[in-house]
Amino acid sequence: MTITTLKQRSLLGLKDLSKEEIISILDRAAYWEAQPDKVKPVLQGKFVANMFFENSTRTRFSFEVAEKRLGAEVLNFSAAVSSVQKGESIYDTVRTLESMGIDAGVIRLKPIGVLADLATKIKVPLINAGDGNNEHPTQALLDIYTMRKHFGELKGLTVAIVGDILHSRVARSNLWALQKLGVQVRFCAPPNMVAADLAAEYISMEEALKADVIMMLRVQLERHENGMIKSAEDYREHYGLTVERAQRLAPHAIIMHPAPINRNVEIDDELVEHPQSRIFPQMENGVPVRMAVIERALV
Amino acid sequence: MTITTLKQRSLLGLKDLSKEEIISILDRAAYWEAQPDKVKPVLQGKFVANMFFENSTRTRFSFEVAEKRLGAEVLNFSAAVSSVQKGESIYDTVRTLESMGIDAGVIRLKPIGVLADLATKIKVPLINAGDGNNEHPTQALLDIYTMRKHFGELKGLTVAIVGDILHSRVARSNLWALQKLGVQVRFCAPPNMVAADLAAEYISMEEALKADVIMMLRVQLERHENGMIKSAEDYREHYGLTVERAQRLAPHAIIMHPAPINRNVEIDDELVEHPQSRIFPQMENGVPVRMAVIERALV
Amino acid sequence: MTITTLKQRSLLGLKDLSKEEIISILDRAAYWEAQPDKVKPVLQGKFVANMFFENSTRTRFSFEVAEKRLGAEVLNFSAAVSSVQKGESIYDTVRTLESMGIDAGVIRLKPIGVLADLATKIKVPLINAGDGNNEHPTQALLDIYTMRKHFGELKGLTVAIVGDILHSRVARSNLWALQKLGVQVRFCAPPNMVAADLAAEYISMEEALKADVIMMLRVQLERHENGMIKSAEDYREHYGLTVERAQRLAPHAIIMHPAPINRNVEIDDELVEHPQSRIFPQMENGVPVRMAVIERALV
Repeated sequence: MTITTLKQRSLLGLKDLSKEEIISILDRAAYWEAQPDKVKPVLQGKFVANMFFENSTRTRFSFEVAEKRLGAEVLNFSAAVSSVQKGESIYDTVRTLESMGIDAGVIRLKPIGVLADLATKIKVPLINAGDGNNEHPTQALLDIYTMRKHFGELKGLTVAIVGDILHSRVARSNLWALQKLGVQVRFCAPPNMVAADLAAEYISMEEALKADVIMMLRVQLERHENGMIKSAEDYREHYGLTVERAQRLAPHAIIMHPAPINRNVEIDDELVEHPQSRIFPQMENGVPVRMAVIERALV
Repeated sequence: MTITTLKQRSLLGLKDLSKEEIISILDRAAYWEAQPDKVKPVLQGKFVANMFFENSTRTRFSFEVAEKRLGAEVLNFSAAVSSVQKGESIYDTVRTLESMGIDAGVIRLKPIGVLADLATKIKVPLINAGDGNNEHPTQALLDIYTMRKHFGELKGLTVAIVGDILHSRVARSNLWALQKLGVQVRFCAPPNMVAADLAAEYISMEEALKADVIMMLRVQLERHENGMIKSAEDYREHYGLTVERAQRLAPHAIIMHPAPINRNVEIDDELVEHPQSRIFPQMENGVPVRMAVIERALV
Repeated sequence: MTITTLKQRSLLGLKDLSKEEIISILDRAAYWEAQPDKVKPVLQGKFVANMFFENSTRTRFSFEVAEKRLGAEVLNFSAAVSSVQKGESIYDTVRTLESMGIDAGVIRLKPIGVLADLATKIKVPLINAGDGNNEHPTQALLDIYTMRKHFGELKGLTVAIVGDILHSRVARSNLWALQKLGVQVRFCAPPNMVAADLAAEYISMEEALKADVIMMLRVQLERHENGMIKSAEDYREHYGLTVERAQRLAPHAIIMHPAPINRNVEIDDELVEHPQSRIFPQMENGVPVRMAVIERALV
């Protein structure tokens, strides 16, 4: 396989993916969602390794279900129980699994830049399951899939992303992909959580409530320790989607959140399964979207 | 599926299960035990998630073997490596896995009452693999299966359960199920480990040795810290099944223990694989019993 | 199955394995390496448990890939998330999994002597995946397979093993097997890392560079704490395979390492993927070698 083809099979981020590629993945996800049989073994005999150097139950499970529905053999790796503890570098681990004959790797890691470097050295396709605060492409794809499912057409929509933009890979991947698809993305964030590198307008919480889609980000409560947030209560008061604020959303608007959720911090408990919320449907949509991404890597 | 049917497919506990239901599960376990082929893929294409919010190698493995022998796709989750660490609630995790398309969930958790609440909100069948000190239905079913296998008939048997009744979900599930089947259950416990809520007679260790079945419970040695037990030696002296005491058991009587065992505390080392012990056969019987329970949930 | 046959199916170490048995495993590994299809389900319906009482991503993955390529059902157990924490003995855990119907067990553990004892009590074949500093037979088999693949013939080769011989199960297994195959094994070690029990000559680092195979061992940097090593820099200076030293290797010589690697301690970063290095090919060869070992245990 040429390097170009390999790069086309990997999914490192959405920043460099074309609009056509994005739409083709969404369309294929729709195909998988419509399949009556849960398992269709198109990847029989293929080995996919889920390499999580940063823990995540939700994302790992979603990938694992997707892989098994395609009939692949699944290998799970979690840094918390690995020789990474012995100081082994991420590269050595990934290169080791490659040597053992995996056909593709799903990878989540913290240090920024490592994934791009890995992709130049590893020959099997790699799928980014979240790298530091850079990108989380499959999350953004499932978010966009969820929007398209609800609105039919993406072009012309307005999306407000609210919260810790600075540290959010979800915000970055969504911004880059949505802009290609003609969606207007705006951010709403506390002053110390603004990302100077991103080309998007910042708006007030009041303005954010007027968008077609309001996407709430998880706030890292640990940030309280270094003073980035005052308290959970204070955060909710200024940037939380409260029941009171949600009443001002347009009737056709939808509420999104990448989860896991801090109930009653960035979003009120009562809104999580509100009729306008798409939070659990987002997770449901994650499976066919990831099936499309894995299939693209291996077929 | 109606809520009634779903409840019939879930297995939350034995307290509310009819005698007929219990016998039907035991009979089906006997069917599975008699199968010549290890794997019979009646659940092909079905996804079962083992969600262990409290660790347990033994129980998780037993369920996993049972699920794989039925041909199901298995997903394992252990709280120790999960986003529960990030404060995610049990409900959100289970609801997430449900959204991703699991067909049934096996769940173990500590907080009491959470499982009953979950069962009203989650639409896929749930199987209780131990919830706090409330119930551990599959353990009791495999215990009862083991008794029936040895004695042929359950009605009229006497069972003595010895140890920390107060904190034991095994004691509770066994009590409720055995009483329905006409078995006389008696407890033997240190005064500070008596369960006031359970309708069973307490007897002395001497009396307990006269039962047809003597079931020793694991003592949590950690309870030493809060003074609930004086020492391992003291516990053994008063409530342990010692070699000397075991000699007073009837020749037809059997020794049981849900495991893991504290050797030489609640039971002497030499008795674990004694001819009258059914401790490892209990584990063996756990697999067909759990096959019956999972099949009942999904077929 | 008689005890003799069972012992023949288990792989506890290479010390007691005949030359013919070793060659037969290497030949079968070559067969598996040559198979065009990744999965050949000769072990369909068989259950193999990977029981790791000591963590190891690399080795566990290698076994898991091997098992899945043979079509076996795989169960993974890692002590870090198990009831071993609750004081359960290794024996009780292995005996429990045996009761649940596993057909073979792959086991890694720290305490020496436990495996030999287990093998007399457990009836299913056991494969040693590393026991204390005693043996690591599949590692040595893949090392020897790698040498045979490169040199064609093993007899007459010289192998220098460099590092902490005292604590190395890899050195022991290699020594015992290579000597049977007519290979001359020599050790090079710091004075406080010499193994008095092993019948091999110790040579200087200069001498070691003249061997056909130079096998570098991982140094446990934790040993710095008890003063066994002065510093990583000091270790590298005296016993590391540096770029400068590597230039003195014969052109036909190869560099090996069981991994995981401490880059720039026992081996320089630039040498890990050097043309003369076989480090990643060793990992690649581990899969067919383990397929041969598992197949031998179960077919």
